[in-house]
Amino acid sequence: MTTPRVLVLDDDPTPDLSRLDGRAEVFRSDGAGLAARLPDADVLLVWDFTNDAVRRAWPGGGRRPGWVHTASAGVDRLLPELAGSDVVITNARGVFDQPIAEYVTGLVLAMAKDFAGTWEFQRSRTWRHRETMRVAGTRAVVVGSGPIGRAIGRALSALGAEVELVGRTERSADAEFGRVHAGDALPALLPSADWVVCAAPLTPATDRLFDAAAFARTKPGACFVNVGRGRHVVLADLVAALRSGHLRAAALDVFEEEPLGGDSPLWDVPGLWVSPHMSGDTLGWRRDLSEQFCDNFDRWAAGEPLSNVVDKKLGYVPAH
Amino acid sequence: MTTPRVLVLDDDPTPDLSRLDGRAEVFRSDGAGLAARLPDADVLLVWDFTNDAVRRAWPGGGRRPGWVHTASAGVDRLLPELAGSDVVITNARGVFDQPIAEYVTGLVLAMAKDFAGTWEFQRSRTWRHRETMRVAGTRAVVVGSGPIGRAIGRALSALGAEVELVGRTERSADAEFGRVHAGDALPALLPSADWVVCAAPLTPATDRLFDAAAFARTKPGACFVNVGRGRHVVLADLVAALRSGHLRAAALDVFEEEPLGGDSPLWDVPGLWVSPHMSGDTLGWRRDLSEQFCDNFDRWAAGEPLSNVVDKKLGYVPAH
Repeated sequence: MTTPRVLVLDDDPTPDLSRLDGRAEVFRSDGAGLAARLPDADVLLVWDFTNDAVRRAWPGGGRRPGWVHTASAGVDRLLPELAGSDVVITNARGVFDQPIAEYVTGLVLAMAKDFAGTWEFQRSRTWRHRETMRVAGTRAVVVGSGPIGRAIGRALSALGAEVELVGRTERSADAEFGRVHAGDALPALLPSADWVVCAAPLTPATDRLFDAAAFARTKPGACFVNVGRGRHVVLADLVAALRSGHLRAAALDVFEEEPLGGDSPLWDVPGLWVSPHMSGDTLGWRRDLSEQFCDNFDRWAAGEPLSNVVDKKLGYVPAH
Repeated sequence: MTTPRVLVLDDDPTPDLSRLDGRAEVFRSDGAGLAARLPDADVLLVWDFTNDAVRRAWPGGGRRPGWVHTASAGVDRLLPELAGSDVVITNARGVFDQPIAEYVTGLVLAMAKDFAGTWEFQRSRTWRHRETMRVAGTRAVVVGSGPIGRAIGRALSALGAEVELVGRTERSADAEFGRVHAGDALPALLPSADWVVCAAPLTPATDRLFDAAAFARTKPGACFVNVGRGRHVVLADLVAALRSGHLRAAALDVFEEEPLGGDSPLWDVPGLWVSPHMSGDTLGWRRDLSEQFCDNFDRWAAGEPLSNVVDKKLGYVPAH
């Protein structure tokens, strides 16, 4: 067997692939050069998962790698173009679960306790006692029933919140949450939720899921958090719901265009917290992502089944 | 039996004691008038628990109520003056546990995820991705092994942190935490703790517990949270530990003098979060405190043992 060639759609900092030394020829490309280099690759590692270059290069004229791994949980930068070919797609399922769960739990607590208000008062050297919310006994709806959504649900449940998970299809005997709701149950769940969290994959079914109609159904004073993808939310509708006071607060960690430009009107919408797509990126995340790819490379080289194989029709790794 | 007289050291808003209608004569006083009214009271409800008037009025010349209830977890505004008499002191044990645990967990997560940094970047419309801490796998030391400290420990444990509780005396077979450390174990625990949380009662043993020597032993980059009492901390030493960068961040919810004046230098110490003694005060807390007193009044009126009787030598309600 010839030495396999692993092409990396690169980003700074680059992945540590020293585990492949002597076993693979690793070469790198930016987005602009990707299409020209693809015919020489057996494997493509999409390290810069914010880049649309793979979609643009597919199917293209020449040979294509048989396996594409993306260092992200979402595969929305690969689909639908790659769905039509027989390429195997794997993703970073697992790496981000606990970090994102912690991040979302921190946001929920910060909103419940009005930390933003406290910090504003601190800036103005003002002692202003307020009564804040107790999270225990509140209700959360988490859209996304994969490992990230489940980790969020677990963390909020541990604080005493009642959590409803929403997935694609209903599961009536979930071992941990009792029940996972189907997507079409969401409108009925929104009116009683204090916290609405989006941690779903971006698929045609969840594209623009949070629009004016959805926000109109949310409980007055509810808070919204998006750690999924920017396209899950109709931004103008979210901003309107915040400006009217119907939503008390919202946090967006993801945007259609990243990075968000300095001239975006989102930065100073009252009650809106903007963060730079970092909810899952704890210290060591790049090492974890490199290791996860190398583990899968070992399987691939040995002819074993790959982990985290994405169902290209669904747009995510289905539960077992 | 004559109608018992219940004196309330009042605060705005006043407690709802309508449950005592027809069963007690409720009268009220501010701090200045307290000493003169005490001889007419069978029961004293210390609703304004930030007031030192009770200590100043004790023992005094006349008759004193046999039962004093304070609407707070800490009884440091009553001791040591009341310890020498045979008055029974009860406190608000239980009301604040979950709210304070949520608050502290929110602070820990906000510090781990650098929400303060994110909000500063948002103010300057700057997209700045950073890698942040994972709480799972970190170590927390919680000083205070009463119900508040235990609730904090439980919440942090649920996120995957390793929690060490420090109390007055060692307990080697704690059902929930395995072991509770004695106070003199604290110096040995500090060097490995990422989070140091003070949720102790203020007693001679914990007065000024967090001083330069303690901060010198903490792990570089650790964070400190005080939801106990202001006197637990030597402020100059804390500020020095923050300014040197040895501590990454700290949050103070309690101060020796409350409210903190607008001219306090604490408001703008880098890395220090100042909040106005509100960690336990969730919506409905005053109702909960009123109900708790009325429940105890029912016991008192029926001649039954009171709940939450403070050990006046220890300065808190001992564990059963």
